[in-house]
Amino acid sequence: MANKIFRVNMSTLTTSIEDVPESWAGHGGRGLTSTIVAAEVEPTCHPLGPKNKLVIAPGLLSGTIAANSGRLSIGAKSPLTGTIKESNAGGTAAQILAKAGCKALIVEGLPEKDGWYSIALTPESITINEETELPGKGNFAVLETLADRLEGSPAILTIGQAGEMKMCSANVSIKDPDGNLRSSGRGGLGAVMGSKKIKFITIDPKDGKVEIAEPEKFKEANRVFAKALMDHPLTAGLGQYGTNVLVNVINEAGSLPTKNFTAGQFEGHEAISGETMHDIIVERGGKPRHNCHAGCVIQCSQIYNDAKGEKLTAGFEYESIWAMGADCCVDNLDQIAEADRIMDDIGIDTIETSVAFGVAMEAGVLEFGDGAGICRILQEEVTKGTGLGRIIGNGTGSVGRAYGVTRVPVVKNQAIPAYDPRSIKGMGITYATSTQGADHTMGYAVTANILGVGGNVDPMSKEGQIELSRNLQVATAAIDSTGMCLFIAFAALDDEKCLPALIDLLNARFGIALTGDDVVALGQSILKTERGFNLAAGFTAADDRLPDFFYTEPLPPHNVVFDFTDEEMATFWDF
Amino acid sequence: MANKIFRVNMSTLTTSIEDVPESWAGHGGRGLTSTIVAAEVEPTCHPLGPKNKLVIAPGLLSGTIAANSGRLSIGAKSPLTGTIKESNAGGTAAQILAKAGCKALIVEGLPEKDGWYSIALTPESITINEETELPGKGNFAVLETLADRLEGSPAILTIGQAGEMKMCSANVSIKDPDGNLRSSGRGGLGAVMGSKKIKFITIDPKDGKVEIAEPEKFKEANRVFAKALMDHPLTAGLGQYGTNVLVNVINEAGSLPTKNFTAGQFEGHEAISGETMHDIIVERGGKPRHNCHAGCVIQCSQIYNDAKGEKLTAGFEYESIWAMGADCCVDNLDQIAEADRIMDDIGIDTIETSVAFGVAMEAGVLEFGDGAGICRILQEEVTKGTGLGRIIGNGTGSVGRAYGVTRVPVVKNQAIPAYDPRSIKGMGITYATSTQGADHTMGYAVTANILGVGGNVDPMSKEGQIELSRNLQVATAAIDSTGMCLFIAFAALDDEKCLPALIDLLNARFGIALTGDDVVALGQSILKTERGFNLAAGFTAADDRLPDFFYTEPLPPHNVVFDFTDEEMATFWDF
Repeated sequence: MANKIFRVNMSTLTTSIEDVPESWAGHGGRGLTSTIVAAEVEPTCHPLGPKNKLVIAPGLLSGTIAANSGRLSIGAKSPLTGTIKESNAGGTAAQILAKAGCKALIVEGLPEKDGWYSIALTPESITINEETELPGKGNFAVLETLADRLEGSPAILTIGQAGEMKMCSANVSIKDPDGNLRSSGRGGLGAVMGSKKIKFITIDPKDGKVEIAEPEKFKEANRVFAKALMDHPLTAGLGQYGTNVLVNVINEAGSLPTKNFTAGQFEGHEAISGETMHDIIVERGGKPRHNCHAGCVIQCSQIYNDAKGEKLTAGFEYESIWAMGADCCVDNLDQIAEADRIMDDIGIDTIETSVAFGVAMEAGVLEFGDGAGICRILQEEVTKGTGLGRIIGNGTGSVGRAYGVTRVPVVKNQAIPAYDPRSIKGMGITYATSTQGADHTMGYAVTANILGVGGNVDPMSKEGQIELSRNLQVATAAIDSTGMCLFIAFAALDDEKCLPALIDLLNARFGIALTGDDVVALGQSILKTERGFNLAAGFTAADDRLPDFFYTEPLPPHNVVFDFTDEEMATFWDF
Repeated sequence: MANKIFRVNMSTLTTSIEDVPESWAGHGGRGLTSTIVAAEVEPTCHPLGPKNKLVIAPGLLSGTIAANSGRLSIGAKSPLTGTIKESNAGGTAAQILAKAGCKALIVEGLPEKDGWYSIALTPESITINEETELPGKGNFAVLETLADRLEGSPAILTIGQAGEMKMCSANVSIKDPDGNLRSSGRGGLGAVMGSKKIKFITIDPKDGKVEIAEPEKFKEANRVFAKALMDHPLTAGLGQYGTNVLVNVINEAGSLPTKNFTAGQFEGHEAISGETMHDIIVERGGKPRHNCHAGCVIQCSQIYNDAKGEKLTAGFEYESIWAMGADCCVDNLDQIAEADRIMDDIGIDTIETSVAFGVAMEAGVLEFGDGAGICRILQEEVTKGTGLGRIIGNGTGSVGRAYGVTRVPVVKNQAIPAYDPRSIKGMGITYATSTQGADHTMGYAVTANILGVGGNVDPMSKEGQIELSRNLQVATAAIDSTGMCLFIAFAALDDEKCLPALIDLLNARFGIALTGDDVVALGQSILKTERGFNLAAGFTAADDRLPDFFYTEPLPPHNVVFDFTDEEMATFWDF
């Protein structure tokens, strides 16, 4: 089946299925969403107005049997950052969308009248339907209701109350193979979907499948590729403890941002660690390993049960646990899991929202350590859209502005995640220069700074950090275009067979002959496209820096500050 | 007495009195505050952090007998806009500060421990004192308490609860000769003062006075200057009806922004007009004319009494009345006066806050027309700093972001005031290009667009608007440096004797020989200093535009849009 662009205009309530323009043909995932947003969205437009577009694209390898290729990219101008934005997540949607022959779904315009809609996509059709039952409901209610209402196992993208209220931290949530939720969490893309009055999108692939130009070559490349992933030592740790294996690692490194980024180690780290989590999961009959999409060989997800043995939450990530845990000084994993579940249900970014709570605690809205208070505010204030709920739901910068706090860990208004940039300086470069606001996944310098993956770069030294972050950001932009999970990067950095196998997969899929240089050029070109959008939107070098306090407040225990000058930072873009 | 720089360091709780650097000697008022902020404040710093400075300066002619020379300039990096900011107001402080020999008061740093302070300035001393009684109190309580506590009639600068809570719309409020309040309202300078934990500043001039180099020349120039002011036809209207004379004028022009900028005429305009206000004031025994500082010959202020004949509010301006009136659809002048009084007491900008209410009404927080609701929210929410109170108190952009509203009338996050830029296009140029966010006083193109002052430029045509706004912005920057009220501009534009007399005043004051060209060069240089700060803070041409809806939503009754391209707008800076 030929790939097509599926387009939905919410102003006219019309749809179309279009051929792919030639200039978009070589793109997928993030490369495609960013190319389309840059081509079709006015950089200065209001992110929640009619000129913004929500673009959803599977990766170049999504829908194939390639290991770990099930990530879906969603792009738009972000209401949180004002920059171009791509957020990717697992779940079943990328694979199903690819099988349905959809290269990208573009949602544009805004409905004129009140009321909510859903969108249904199949290989032959795309329809807009009025929706009256589910608006106002949380994401879990959406999944339950649609399980009854719909036949088969369509992919589902949904927004909770946060997206409906156009909160700047709202997720687009994506159903996984077992009915759990994965989140396109960063940058408020759920608010863009909410502004267009779309409660959910279903994708039914019928009997569609992805064609492979050279099937035997593809199979062989996948065998090599999957083996490289499984052979990497980090894969085992991720499978056993999930990403939360990092709590103890980063705490040990003195880089676990604690109490709203005033310290680098958290006294309660053991209680929230991956090791403790693993024991609790096993003890309560949860699942320590779980895959967020079919074909994942790493399985870093998990099912975390409550004390009664009932499922409490799934996909319980390090960055979420760090944010509610160390950053808010909550040393109770059950409270963190409860908050995680509520945030998944409301459909709101766990990183942005939890870091926002850290700032709210500094402002005196609640006490540090008050995990029950976090759950109460999420339920009573954020879900209901009260004044305080809106302040929290609009993110960390929003809380800082509301209460006049100056220690506000954001870049381009997006919360800095779980690695303090003072003592993991490579991450500081990534946070500051990323085209999308502070985001660890944009250039995960923790690799060489802490994990010894892809070499070793002293985390406390400035030496080599800009080059490291640049190389990682370029590679990440390319990987995010394939539909591959970012965790393939560990093997790609350390195992010389991994990256050639990935390129072989691309070549066999499309019958082309990409080289490693082509992939680097693709990554560079995506970054430049994204930066071009941001410059036209009004961003400058002055936005490519960390908040002042990182330069002036030494971080215990190493008592270091972030010490790159703006001029040094600007050299990031010399390529 | 030689002029000095008085400096207060709140980090070390120390003060100093310094000589004036030579490069600052020719500056006063806005020219001086902007020069000092540009020289001493890092453009990328957090406006509420230790690196921002609050700079307070009388004008070059303040403290003399020159008519209308009593405006005080306050500058800083604005927490509302992120730009450089100067806001000027009447009251007694400019004249007293000049008589005390203070060319500028610079407040820097932040105290390390909790608690509040006051600052007391005399010609020989500047002291920091702990203050425990007045924090938490409104501005009127501050004036009452200090009237009992202090001898004589010192000038008083104070912040209310809004400033203490570092709300981005907080005023610095200034006592007038009769114990009423005038406000440095725009841009949240009260939040900067609050961040430095200063509740109030008192200035006692002792027997200080301003020296005049050539007293006779000065007196003669002032005679000509004051006559020019009094002879101008607009002066009479301003004296009789106050600035609120404009409600009917701008409504008639179809440019009175109504119902959150969705129409240009307000059905209830008569009820809130200057003419109605005048009748109410006279009927209730108020004062239709009142001067905000000694030596004002225009007297556009007034005392507005309630139905019982008790003073309700003073300095009841067109822009405030428009914002609560037409923009929020409140056609009850008593409710507007009550809200005005509360905002003066809390110390919060009436324009920013009322336009914020208009957006909140669009979001459904309260109904359009609900003047009682505005007063209730101000008392119950803003004063107490609840979630909703913080959202409102942080301004129009804050409300828009909190509720996901796209029709948000701000430029650089500052609310657009009482003249719709679609049908008074010269004001659109000023709002968009001003170095300080949307501000009518920065380049009041209403003159030639509507009032026939300084020529005639068709308000609905693009022709000549950029040049008009540029000339006005240059002239305003110069006038704002003299300590002169902006209303001298009407005479300066129309009476050929006025501007030469003003220059004679400056020359006689300092024994110098400025020409008209020098004054133009001064204005240009101030604008460029301010713009330089903004560029270094990260502002670009993309910030010099109006919100999207002004380009896409035609304004009734003329059904026109704002139609300058970004490229045309950029030519503003070609000088």
